[in-house]
Amino acid sequence: MKKLLILLLLTSFHSYAQNDDEKQLKKIYDAALTEGKAYDWLNYLSNQIGGRLSGSLEAQRAVEYTKTQLDSLGLDKVWLQPVMVPKWVRGTPEFAYLETSPGMTTTVPICALGGSVATPVGGLKAKLIEVKGIEELKALGRSKIEGKIVFYNRPMDPTLISTFDAYSGAVDQRFSGAEEAAKFGAVGVIVRSMNLRLDDFPHTGSMSYGETAVADRIPAAAISTNAAEMLATTLKLNPETKFYFKQNSKQFDDVESFNVIGEITGSTHPDEIIVVGGHLDSWDLGDGSHDDGAGCVQSMEVLRLLKISGYKPKRTIRAVLFMNEENGLRGGTEYAAKAEMSNENHVFALESDSGGFTPRGFSFDGSDADLKKVQAWVPLFEPYMVHSFQKGYSGADIAPLKKEGMVLAGLLPDSQRYFAHHHAANDTFEYVNKRELELGAASMASLIYLFDKYGDDFGTLKP
Amino acid sequence: MKKLLILLLLTSFHSYAQNDDEKQLKKIYDAALTEGKAYDWLNYLSNQIGGRLSGSLEAQRAVEYTKTQLDSLGLDKVWLQPVMVPKWVRGTPEFAYLETSPGMTTTVPICALGGSVATPVGGLKAKLIEVKGIEELKALGRSKIEGKIVFYNRPMDPTLISTFDAYSGAVDQRFSGAEEAAKFGAVGVIVRSMNLRLDDFPHTGSMSYGETAVADRIPAAAISTNAAEMLATTLKLNPETKFYFKQNSKQFDDVESFNVIGEITGSTHPDEIIVVGGHLDSWDLGDGSHDDGAGCVQSMEVLRLLKISGYKPKRTIRAVLFMNEENGLRGGTEYAAKAEMSNENHVFALESDSGGFTPRGFSFDGSDADLKKVQAWVPLFEPYMVHSFQKGYSGADIAPLKKEGMVLAGLLPDSQRYFAHHHAANDTFEYVNKRELELGAASMASLIYLFDKYGDDFGTLKP
Repeated sequence: MKKLLILLLLTSFHSYAQNDDEKQLKKIYDAALTEGKAYDWLNYLSNQIGGRLSGSLEAQRAVEYTKTQLDSLGLDKVWLQPVMVPKWVRGTPEFAYLETSPGMTTTVPICALGGSVATPVGGLKAKLIEVKGIEELKALGRSKIEGKIVFYNRPMDPTLISTFDAYSGAVDQRFSGAEEAAKFGAVGVIVRSMNLRLDDFPHTGSMSYGETAVADRIPAAAISTNAAEMLATTLKLNPETKFYFKQNSKQFDDVESFNVIGEITGSTHPDEIIVVGGHLDSWDLGDGSHDDGAGCVQSMEVLRLLKISGYKPKRTIRAVLFMNEENGLRGGTEYAAKAEMSNENHVFALESDSGGFTPRGFSFDGSDADLKKVQAWVPLFEPYMVHSFQKGYSGADIAPLKKEGMVLAGLLPDSQRYFAHHHAANDTFEYVNKRELELGAASMASLIYLFDKYGDDFGTLKP
Repeated sequence: MKKLLILLLLTSFHSYAQNDDEKQLKKIYDAALTEGKAYDWLNYLSNQIGGRLSGSLEAQRAVEYTKTQLDSLGLDKVWLQPVMVPKWVRGTPEFAYLETSPGMTTTVPICALGGSVATPVGGLKAKLIEVKGIEELKALGRSKIEGKIVFYNRPMDPTLISTFDAYSGAVDQRFSGAEEAAKFGAVGVIVRSMNLRLDDFPHTGSMSYGETAVADRIPAAAISTNAAEMLATTLKLNPETKFYFKQNSKQFDDVESFNVIGEITGSTHPDEIIVVGGHLDSWDLGDGSHDDGAGCVQSMEVLRLLKISGYKPKRTIRAVLFMNEENGLRGGTEYAAKAEMSNENHVFALESDSGGFTPRGFSFDGSDADLKKVQAWVPLFEPYMVHSFQKGYSGADIAPLKKEGMVLAGLLPDSQRYFAHHHAANDTFEYVNKRELELGAASMASLIYLFDKYGDDFGTLKP
């Protein structure tokens, strides 16, 4: 009987709490969809500022703009955290053609990979060797590679439903292709763009020369998927086809930049910090709307939505707009290092860096016990079609904060369209849908609210 | 012990079947994503044919094109089912302006609603009265309405997560606005476009004059959401503002058109018919890619995917491309009437008419017992992020087939972007993502496969 009574009490308490949370989430989603600011902020970042490569004037303007906007929200604290970032510059537009016989040339769209060295001033022309990946390169060996341009042409796997899985399975060609090809005497590298769609946009992205000596570094560029298909066909017809490309990208000394931070200080547990963030830098070809202007304005919107909903967080909620995710991760690394030095207690972190598309759920990086608790919130998100709570990766910028018992999370938007725009000239504002962006922001604010409210039950904080 | 054994046997049988189904679904999705035809078919329908209003030359070309394509698939039967359809023609482009004082005019984008009568040859100019809906119109009464143009300006509710719910809550203004306004002596009707986004596209759509005598019918047009906002602001500043519009749309006599049908005849239960369909007609402003070119090519693709997967359906699977969903539903009505006359036994039907966006699930119209059985398939769809199996509406074209014990279903794509394009000049091919379209087709083929295989357990067929 007593047991039954306790059960009844628990049930009614649970219903009460659930009901309360349902109302709070509804408040958050309604505000995001009717008086949201994220879309206007993104419009400014994208159309008034544009691509925000680390170390660029645009990146600095974005730092100043977002700080001003955070200042206007009446938060408890807004500040800039200095961080030294690499400065790589694309230079004049790249140019490339293939030559099937002397004088018979066809121009193709390419772009230098981020971090690539320039070609010689007059450009670089050589025969091509097509490979499907680094393993095939190694199998071919020096005799087949030396003096040639290596053409990496393994497409992303279209049968993987998460396009991020398909990206992971192909991006080694872009990241390590030049380093590996140089070992066999290649003179340059052309990589099929990381894009599931056949179109004419080359997609840039980070690459590394690893331990390659400066003198041995070879230039690397991405080629559009349409041109990659054409190149492969041409090579089958005429293996003597030559490829010419010219780029004058350059790495400068590091320069100072900033993470932009705003916080609502916790009312009862100010020392327990919850981070929500995205990265403010982007590649230079488009305006970085999806990658990751969206994540930045959503993170700013989380603070605003919590504030206007009247909710007083127990813990400190910080929006962090990280600098330099794309080609160095200096912002995320610096933020975590400073947090450790200052003995700051970060208890939860959430990143949005997968585009401003319809949110499908979250991926969580944490203990199984904590993930089970998170799963209990799924019914609260079901009315918003945010069903998918998965175990998985959170985000590059918050990953350095990871410690035992902490839960890190990443927003999971629908991924089907992402790689048609990622790191390319068509990552632009017109491809962001206002409602999709807003639903993402509301989902993030709702998760932050729940972690703040029920944080005591989780890993690091559990008594 | 015996009980346990049965349980074990059942479990292992279940695992085996599950495993089999998992493999079949994987086969279907892989084929859709690697060698799909839906996108190419849609490209042709949209870019070589264009908008396919019932009774138009384009509609006839679409009938012939899709029949030819179905013919090429090696199906058991392909045919055209004649159906008489209404023929409404927009005429020369509409023209409208608002006039705040004599000579002070601002042009605004409008389009005639489907079925609307023309204005007088010289156009129509009158004062405006803004209402938020039909209730407000009635409350104002004849003295406030007579001689004026009624401006219906209740927006779709942005807080509803399913934009179809928001559409349902606003579309009475478009459908019945003219009929109701005419009763109070209005001379014309301007309706805010059914669009959640603020932009410059007017959205057409069907309307009805109900029992209004021909002589009393008043012209009705949609105005873009941006212009609706501007008009409302202007009216607040100057209630004497006049509105001018001119359109010469016209209704002709009915003409003959066709439903396009292809089938794989069932191997063991040929008399039990499963329908999968979309509608081939569209509005005339865009090219009808999302509404409903997508549903047509997905339905054709279902037959192709089942065929190339090597699966031999027990029941007859029919793809039906219905004519005239938009302004008459004659195709759906005729198909059902013919089916009844011929004593055909339709056991399941699925429609795709909510756009070619990422599939989120299905809505099912059927008995609770049958829906429970359907729910058991959710785990099979989870790897494809098709989580949402809801009770609800199926589709306009298949609804006339409804009978006791039958399950009808509708594909549920993500709805956030749909009404930015619906019935407007920007419902065009460029806004369809290839993978999203293909995932929808694969989801439909998978559901059809499961209904064919396990159909014996359901309503009408259960022994």
